[in-house]
Amino acid sequence: MTGRLRVGVVGATGWAGRELCRLLLGHPEVGEIVPAARDTTRSFAAVHPNLLGSGLEFVHLDALVERAGALDVVFLCVPAGEAMGMAPELLRRGTRVVDLSADFRFPDPALYERIYARPHSSPELLPEAVFGVTELVRDRLPEARLVANPGCYVISVLLGLLPLAEEGLLGSAGSVHVHAVNGTTGASAKPTRDLHHAEVFGSMLPYSLEGHRHSGELELHLGRLAGGPVDVVMSTAHGAFARGILAQITVLVPPEHRDGLSREALTARYLGRYGSDHSGEHFVLVNDLEKRGGANAKEYGAYPRLSNVVGTNYCHLGVDHDPARSVIKVVSVIDNLGKGAAGSAVQNMNVMVGLPDTTGLRAYAP
Amino acid sequence: MTGRLRVGVVGATGWAGRELCRLLLGHPEVGEIVPAARDTTRSFAAVHPNLLGSGLEFVHLDALVERAGALDVVFLCVPAGEAMGMAPELLRRGTRVVDLSADFRFPDPALYERIYARPHSSPELLPEAVFGVTELVRDRLPEARLVANPGCYVISVLLGLLPLAEEGLLGSAGSVHVHAVNGTTGASAKPTRDLHHAEVFGSMLPYSLEGHRHSGELELHLGRLAGGPVDVVMSTAHGAFARGILAQITVLVPPEHRDGLSREALTARYLGRYGSDHSGEHFVLVNDLEKRGGANAKEYGAYPRLSNVVGTNYCHLGVDHDPARSVIKVVSVIDNLGKGAAGSAVQNMNVMVGLPDTTGLRAYAP
Amino acid sequence: MTGRLRVGVVGATGWAGRELCRLLLGHPEVGEIVPAARDTTRSFAAVHPNLLGSGLEFVHLDALVERAGALDVVFLCVPAGEAMGMAPELLRRGTRVVDLSADFRFPDPALYERIYARPHSSPELLPEAVFGVTELVRDRLPEARLVANPGCYVISVLLGLLPLAEEGLLGSAGSVHVHAVNGTTGASAKPTRDLHHAEVFGSMLPYSLEGHRHSGELELHLGRLAGGPVDVVMSTAHGAFARGILAQITVLVPPEHRDGLSREALTARYLGRYGSDHSGEHFVLVNDLEKRGGANAKEYGAYPRLSNVVGTNYCHLGVDHDPARSVIKVVSVIDNLGKGAAGSAVQNMNVMVGLPDTTGLRAYAP
Amino acid sequence: MTGRLRVGVVGATGWAGRELCRLLLGHPEVGEIVPAARDTTRSFAAVHPNLLGSGLEFVHLDALVERAGALDVVFLCVPAGEAMGMAPELLRRGTRVVDLSADFRFPDPALYERIYARPHSSPELLPEAVFGVTELVRDRLPEARLVANPGCYVISVLLGLLPLAEEGLLGSAGSVHVHAVNGTTGASAKPTRDLHHAEVFGSMLPYSLEGHRHSGELELHLGRLAGGPVDVVMSTAHGAFARGILAQITVLVPPEHRDGLSREALTARYLGRYGSDHSGEHFVLVNDLEKRGGANAKEYGAYPRLSNVVGTNYCHLGVDHDPARSVIKVVSVIDNLGKGAAGSAVQNMNVMVGLPDTTGLRAYAP
Repeated sequence: MTGRLRVGVVGATGWAGRELCRLLLGHPEVGEIVPAARDTTRSFAAVHPNLLGSGLEFVHLDALVERAGALDVVFLCVPAGEAMGMAPELLRRGTRVVDLSADFRFPDPALYERIYARPHSSPELLPEAVFGVTELVRDRLPEARLVANPGCYVISVLLGLLPLAEEGLLGSAGSVHVHAVNGTTGASAKPTRDLHHAEVFGSMLPYSLEGHRHSGELELHLGRLAGGPVDVVMSTAHGAFARGILAQITVLVPPEHRDGLSREALTARYLGRYGSDHSGEHFVLVNDLEKRGGANAKEYGAYPRLSNVVGTNYCHLGVDHDPARSVIKVVSVIDNLGKGAAGSAVQNMNVMVGLPDTTGLRAYAP
Repeated sequence: MTGRLRVGVVGATGWAGRELCRLLLGHPEVGEIVPAARDTTRSFAAVHPNLLGSGLEFVHLDALVERAGALDVVFLCVPAGEAMGMAPELLRRGTRVVDLSADFRFPDPALYERIYARPHSSPELLPEAVFGVTELVRDRLPEARLVANPGCYVISVLLGLLPLAEEGLLGSAGSVHVHAVNGTTGASAKPTRDLHHAEVFGSMLPYSLEGHRHSGELELHLGRLAGGPVDVVMSTAHGAFARGILAQITVLVPPEHRDGLSREALTARYLGRYGSDHSGEHFVLVNDLEKRGGANAKEYGAYPRLSNVVGTNYCHLGVDHDPARSVIKVVSVIDNLGKGAAGSAVQNMNVMVGLPDTTGLRAYAP
Repeated sequence: MTGRLRVGVVGATGWAGRELCRLLLGHPEVGEIVPAARDTTRSFAAVHPNLLGSGLEFVHLDALVERAGALDVVFLCVPAGEAMGMAPELLRRGTRVVDLSADFRFPDPALYERIYARPHSSPELLPEAVFGVTELVRDRLPEARLVANPGCYVISVLLGLLPLAEEGLLGSAGSVHVHAVNGTTGASAKPTRDLHHAEVFGSMLPYSLEGHRHSGELELHLGRLAGGPVDVVMSTAHGAFARGILAQITVLVPPEHRDGLSREALTARYLGRYGSDHSGEHFVLVNDLEKRGGANAKEYGAYPRLSNVVGTNYCHLGVDHDPARSVIKVVSVIDNLGKGAAGSAVQNMNVMVGLPDTTGLRAYAP
Repeated sequence: MTGRLRVGVVGATGWAGRELCRLLLGHPEVGEIVPAARDTTRSFAAVHPNLLGSGLEFVHLDALVERAGALDVVFLCVPAGEAMGMAPELLRRGTRVVDLSADFRFPDPALYERIYARPHSSPELLPEAVFGVTELVRDRLPEARLVANPGCYVISVLLGLLPLAEEGLLGSAGSVHVHAVNGTTGASAKPTRDLHHAEVFGSMLPYSLEGHRHSGELELHLGRLAGGPVDVVMSTAHGAFARGILAQITVLVPPEHRDGLSREALTARYLGRYGSDHSGEHFVLVNDLEKRGGANAKEYGAYPRLSNVVGTNYCHLGVDHDPARSVIKVVSVIDNLGKGAAGSAVQNMNVMVGLPDTTGLRAYAP
């Protein structure tokens, strides 16, 4: 590791922390990684055997805080409610913070308190926290001290609806319906019988039907893009795979926008917004295989498939139209630990320190 | 096999045919199974090695037709468009027919022709065909000559929405949104690279976003139950598992029905409709584990999980309420080849010949 | 449940206990099931949601012991070392015991103590304990009070080598090599991070390379069949599936037996021992699909595949010959919780109480 | 792509070709990739949707051959028997060839003909072909025109046994037993019902029990290392995962080498041969987590797990000792498409063109 950047990872025993370390180990501008945890009894490679050989070892959280002034960026991969206690001290010592938890995603502490059912201990930091969908806030990141990485579902849905929101298609037509299936790294890492491999294999586990916390996060940020209130009805489940989110989104098209809608036209709009083959937003790729004449495109190839983004920072989008019911269908796939968490965090770091978005993040899915 | 019933299975090389044979082999009242196919070159056990030992062998389709008069029931597991050509001759020879395809599901041939893009060759049979959700048509089955087994998605959604439809909750409030994930036995059995194990593993494959054919089937039959038109917006995908459907359904509650809604109240309604622990509809089980004080019920146990019905004829239902968005959430899980196809077909046969629904079908999931 | 038999299941919260309850619920001669556990705080259906609807509830272990005299058979599904403390009291109260643990598998307590590293507290019961591979001890079971169900690997390997052992082919030629992959229900049900779904997905986990405990069990019982000492070198791993064992066994053929060896001849020998299509041992099926002319038999169909026995009490066997290296290859697949544990235990119970082996156990794999 | 190297990939529609393109797209010294196929009707991204965005398109095989003189290296990912027809012309035109098939792995054409049942059409090239286990032939690669990439099983086993072979431990003690489970990308990409996802899910498929072709390849090259004949008895199966090989190897220790054997001593020997944490062979990592005091090392962490190398060029090795049976157990895991094929091929290319082994290949497993 010969790069100039020194970075810390708090909460490095979890899956997001593991993925951050993995990405940072392959990042050409990173010269030092400090993986910190409260419990440092086990060796790093025993906790993360996929990183055997890296030579990394855990340091105690306190030691990282002590050294914070010498670190360019510190990533926080801690449960909701812990980051708001850590960030002030880290910032005071002069490092910059990318928080992967929900603690700094809501400018209004009251909203945070309602959704997460706890008071916010650092409301004074909320005004400066940048909600880090890189594609939307690229200009603000170079100056940012504190970045709130969005929720994994939120990234997949915001990128999926951006072209529609910007054109006023979310309008006042009512609700957006999101059905999203997440891998088991999206569940708690705490071992329980429900998450024992033998109980999950071949199954699917719906959860949070009473309203997922990311619904509120989406309503806030989607509402801003749409220029008005948007209801987001979410149905979530864990699938029996380790990584990835498949989000299927339906939007009822307001009557005034129904003319001329077609799959082809919608795909063209998305390509217009995001570009083709990395010509625009590097990490957002619109599935236009049908348009390209891929012989198989009528079949499953016509839509994004989950496995094509696992292990990467890419988001694949597909869009279609059900003319009989006047709904637009959007499919958005990301890796919940990649673009949905660690990848996105590194992308934000890149822009914060003046690098291109893509540094260290171009890998395609195996 | 010592039972009195003699049954035929047309299209016995496919997965629905395999599952029918499996269920019929364990059925105490079945004495003879005639598995028929157009291609009889391979031995039965080579095509269905899970049934090694059964002693069954394929007969040619023509031979089955010849013997049809001696068979009590013939099941048709053939692609859409083929059953309508076979049923008249089979009925003429005096057997009864349970068709697992879509050919006899629409009383109006024009609707069939619109959805399946082909003319209907036996429209004269449509008036007598019974749409076979056993739970809804139990009284009509003993006299039925021709039963149209519903689509797999349709069974899962109809059972999931029945209590709401019967109480007028689907009303004119707008659309029902269905997101359903089906196993790969729900896809074509024709080998393609898209369905090669290596391409599906760890993935999810969205499909038919332009409108799944079962949307129309659902709109027809749900509309009847609801007493008025219902739009059904479906998003479908294949998950990387062989069997099972997880359907997650959202229903916007009309303002006049919003008072007093709660998960507890909804669960009570569903239990009122379907009974508890087989006290009502044997194969429809409402997940009320939270109510029973299962310590883990707050977690995944609070909702039906897919694996709990795979290999069975059961449908597990769970219901919840998102109060912030006034929507009811329903989860319905079935085995697409069990209750969604072969199990349901055997259940229909049971009632047709005067047996209890449950004969040969009580097995729980491994 | 209208049968005459009353049975108890101790350790009913685990996976073997779950499968026993599932099988007993479908058993036509069982009239009462008493699932017992030390911890009865959760409802039965919350622990075993696949059995929702059964109406079973846990009773405390002490309550089962009190009632033991009224039970025909009690199954013990407890960790090694616990059954030997429970069995004496249960037997004293007049019930019969089928123990699924290792406690009564070794006639010589010293061998048990060496392998399991603890003293045996009930050595006086060892002489009467019947080592319950049903196919080998059918005559002794009607009189047995105490049956020691064999280890799951042991059943798969013993059935796979029986025809060779009986013909003297294991001879003094040296070692038998067993490579066996077991599902994650074969691992501990105790939740750990190693067994969290996200860590196991897409992986394989070798374990016990220093010598699996079942090696000793196999050497003892295989040695008896072979009439002389046999070394069993085992390599074991968990695969990323919930249920099933694939055992691949290689046997070096002594020079005096090498003439005339061929796949065809070996398959014929196995068919001679076990019969074809349930004509001999009902639950042991020899894969002879190549012989039957299944067109696909040259490919994977030529050998047993794991999925064909999951959820069942069947063992599928395949046998082949590598002429260049003079080894016989045997493939044996079972369900580790079925024929490898609960299925086998019910099969033993059947013979103990005078029923055919097959009662309640004929189901084929979904 | 700004590097200096221009490379061709023949057979770019398959999985090895896909992985090669993926690795080359991330290789900092590669400036042009020419993916060639006989069938160029489908777009590259439709065949390889994981590489959507790369901008690659197929060229016809003939066009690649025409341009061969301008390419630094051409990789052949074609079925056994095709490469020997292509290599002479490619070499004549002045490019260098890395062949991933079996065609140039055997110096003696008679051996090739015996194992692959076809005559060798280019025996004149065999003497110069370098059998490309990079770790063994690093010195010969800079001058090599033609490299024969080893079989995927062969790489995993050779790396696993190298330290034992070099110390004479394979001796004349008899056979080496290899049990190896490969993902379904290791099977044919040709769609068949046997490989349809629905048939493979939750299963394992043994194959080639009559003797895998890689046995002969191993016997040849292992024999050279061991300095005498070695029998390699292989048992192979496909597991229900897309990528990766788990090889479990047992070696009977000759009596004269049994003293002082222990897991600790063996691990030290392997570390001595391969180094620790990339200090020696970068891509061969010895699992010494127990030694490092990883608290979990007694459990599954003590051995290599498959998922830790999928998507990478790493080989993880673990070694243990069963003292009761005097056998050494070796576990070797690789990605069959990575270190087992495309990764290894790129590693060879690196050394051929004067780069460090590791260029473009350092990524750890997600």
